[in-house]
Amino acid sequence: MNHEMSAEHELIAKLFQPIAGEGSLSLLDDAAFLTPPAGHDLVITADAVVSGVHFLPGDAPADIARKALRVNLSDLAAKGAEPIGFLHVLALPSNGFDERWLIPYARGLGEDAKSYRCPLLGGDIVSTPGPLTVSITAFGTVPSGRMVRRATARVGDAIVCTGTIGDAVLGLKLLRDPEVIWGKILNILQHEHLISRYHQPQPRSALAGTVRTYCSAAMDVSDGFVGDLCKLLVASEVGAVIDVADVPLSSAAAEAVAADGTLLEAVLTGGDDYEIVATVPPDKLAAFLAAAGDHGVHACRVGEVCAPEKKILFRNRDGSPMVFARPAYSHL
Amino acid sequence: MNHEMSAEHELIAKLFQPIAGEGSLSLLDDAAFLTPPAGHDLVITADAVVSGVHFLPGDAPADIARKALRVNLSDLAAKGAEPIGFLHVLALPSNGFDERWLIPYARGLGEDAKSYRCPLLGGDIVSTPGPLTVSITAFGTVPSGRMVRRATARVGDAIVCTGTIGDAVLGLKLLRDPEVIWGKILNILQHEHLISRYHQPQPRSALAGTVRTYCSAAMDVSDGFVGDLCKLLVASEVGAVIDVADVPLSSAAAEAVAADGTLLEAVLTGGDDYEIVATVPPDKLAAFLAAAGDHGVHACRVGEVCAPEKKILFRNRDGSPMVFARPAYSHL
Repeated sequence: MNHEMSAEHELIAKLFQPIAGEGSLSLLDDAAFLTPPAGHDLVITADAVVSGVHFLPGDAPADIARKALRVNLSDLAAKGAEPIGFLHVLALPSNGFDERWLIPYARGLGEDAKSYRCPLLGGDIVSTPGPLTVSITAFGTVPSGRMVRRATARVGDAIVCTGTIGDAVLGLKLLRDPEVIWGKILNILQHEHLISRYHQPQPRSALAGTVRTYCSAAMDVSDGFVGDLCKLLVASEVGAVIDVADVPLSSAAAEAVAADGTLLEAVLTGGDDYEIVATVPPDKLAAFLAAAGDHGVHACRVGEVCAPEKKILFRNRDGSPMVFARPAYSHL
Repeated sequence: MNHEMSAEHELIAKLFQPIAGEGSLSLLDDAAFLTPPAGHDLVITADAVVSGVHFLPGDAPADIARKALRVNLSDLAAKGAEPIGFLHVLALPSNGFDERWLIPYARGLGEDAKSYRCPLLGGDIVSTPGPLTVSITAFGTVPSGRMVRRATARVGDAIVCTGTIGDAVLGLKLLRDPEVIWGKILNILQHEHLISRYHQPQPRSALAGTVRTYCSAAMDVSDGFVGDLCKLLVASEVGAVIDVADVPLSSAAAEAVAADGTLLEAVLTGGDDYEIVATVPPDKLAAFLAAAGDHGVHACRVGEVCAPEKKILFRNRDGSPMVFARPAYSHL
C-alpha cells in the first residue's frame, strides 16, 4: 500500500500546520476541539470573501488572507469577544494558485493568527471551477451572557463610531480608476492610506473589552455606515438623529469629499470600513471615549438614539435631512 | 431614511429564520453565541461542497442542502460528538438561484436541522461569479477530553466499518453514464439505491455515543475507504492487515463488482461513503458490533491493527496483496 500523503494533505501539513493552535490536533484529524473557559459563552461568526466580489483578483495573497480573517475578527470585536481561534475553508481554482501563491497566503494568515492571538483550528481545502473563495469561521469568548448585541440600543444613548469611515471605498475607487479627478488633489501618502484601508482592514480587536464594558449595543461597519447603523437601530426598534458632519473622516477622505461633494454618499454607504458603530448610555460616554483612546483607537459621538416614532434622521449641518440614493451596499 | 431591509436580509429572514436555534438571535445579529454544557468540549468541523465538484449542477436543491450539512454531521458522528448547531455560508451565483430554488433548498436544510437536532446558528450569504458553494461549520459536544481521534489506534485492535462501502461512487457512475454495461444487470431498486447513496449521504449520527464508548480511533469515510483508513493508520503510526473480501458491500455494489471486476478499486477508493471506519480493542469488539446494531446500523470487522513494521496490507481472499492504481480520491 502506498503510504504517501495526498496532495491536499501535504499542502496542509507544510503550509498551515505552523499556524495551528491547541485543539487543532495539528490539522491531522477530521475535527478540532475547543474547551471554552468556564463561565464563558462562545461567540461564533462566519464570513466568506470571494475573488472579484470582496477583493480584487490581483490583490496580494497575504492581503487576501488577512482580509478573510480580519472581517471575522471585526465581528468578534464588535460583539465584545476576545478571539480564540478560527476554521479556514479555502476553495481553490485549479490554475494559478500553486505554492508561489500559497506560501505568502499562508504567511499572511499566520502573521495575523499570531498577532490577533487567534490560532488556526482546522478547516477544509476544496477545488473549485470558480473564483478563489475563503470562508472563515471565527470563535471568541465573552463572560456568560455578555455578548454585545444589535437589538439592545436604548432611547437616550449616544451613538458612537470608531476610527474613520469611507476610506476603503475611496481606496477601491482609486484602484479601479487611478486617474479619477478628485484623486489628483490628494498626495501620495493619502492615496496609500485609502488603498491600504481597502486592502488591510484594521479590526478593532483592542476594543473588545471596552465595547463589553460600556456599550448597550454594537456592530461592525462592513456593508456601509448608514446601512449598518440602520440595521442596529431597526433591530433595537428605536429612532435616531445622526449628525453627518460628525461622522469621522480621515484627512484624505475629507479632502476628497471637499473636492467632489458627490463622494459623501459613497463614503457613508460604501462599506469595508470594519469600524465599530455602537450605542453608549450618556453617563458612560466620556468613559467609553477615554477607554477607546487608551487602547489607541479614536472614537467619537455621531448622534443620539430617539424614540421610535422619530424615525432615523441623518441630518446635514443646516438641520436638513440627508437623503441617500442607495443607503446600504449589498454584495447580493 | 429608508427602513427597508436589504435583499440579503429579507431572504434570510424569510427562508432561514424558521430553522434558527437558540443563540442564533434569529439570525439578526453579526454573530451567534453558544453556551457549551459544563464538563464538555466543543467539537468543530468545517466542510465545503462546490457545484460540479462535490455535487452535480442539476441536483435537487434539497439534496444539495442535505449533503452540505450531512458531510459535516458525518465528521461529528465519527468523532463521537452529538450535534448542537451549525453555521451556513452560501455563495450564490447571480443567475438561476431565485426563490424557486432557495425555498426547497431551505426546506431540505430545515428538515435535516430538525431531524438531526442541529439548529442553524448563523452564517453569511455572498454572491459569487463562480459555482454555487456551500460551506458549513458544524458544532458538536463530547464529555471533556472524549473526542475520538484518528491517531490513537493501537496494535491488536480490530478494524471495523459501518454500513456499506462504494455505493455512492457507483451511483455517480450511473448518473454520469446511465447506459454503462454493468448497470444493465442491476434492477431498478438497485439503481435507485446506488444513486440515492450519492445524493443523500446517511451520516451515522446514531452511533456517536457508541463510537465514544468503544472505539480507540475513528474517522468518517469521505475520500475513499482505502485512503481514509490509511490516514488513520498512518496518523496512529501502526500497520494493518485488511481483508478486502470482508469490506461490506450492498447487494447492488456486490453484483456490479461481480459483473465487472475492475469496479472493485473504484468501490474501495471512490469516496462519498460517509460511513465510519474505526478501531476497537478486541475485548470490546462484540459489544461494539451489538451496540451499533441496536442503533440500527450494521457494522463489521474488516481487519486488524499490526505493528508498524508490518506496513498496511490490503489482502485478497487468496492472501495476495491488493495493489491500487490510485488509492485515494482527492478533489484537489
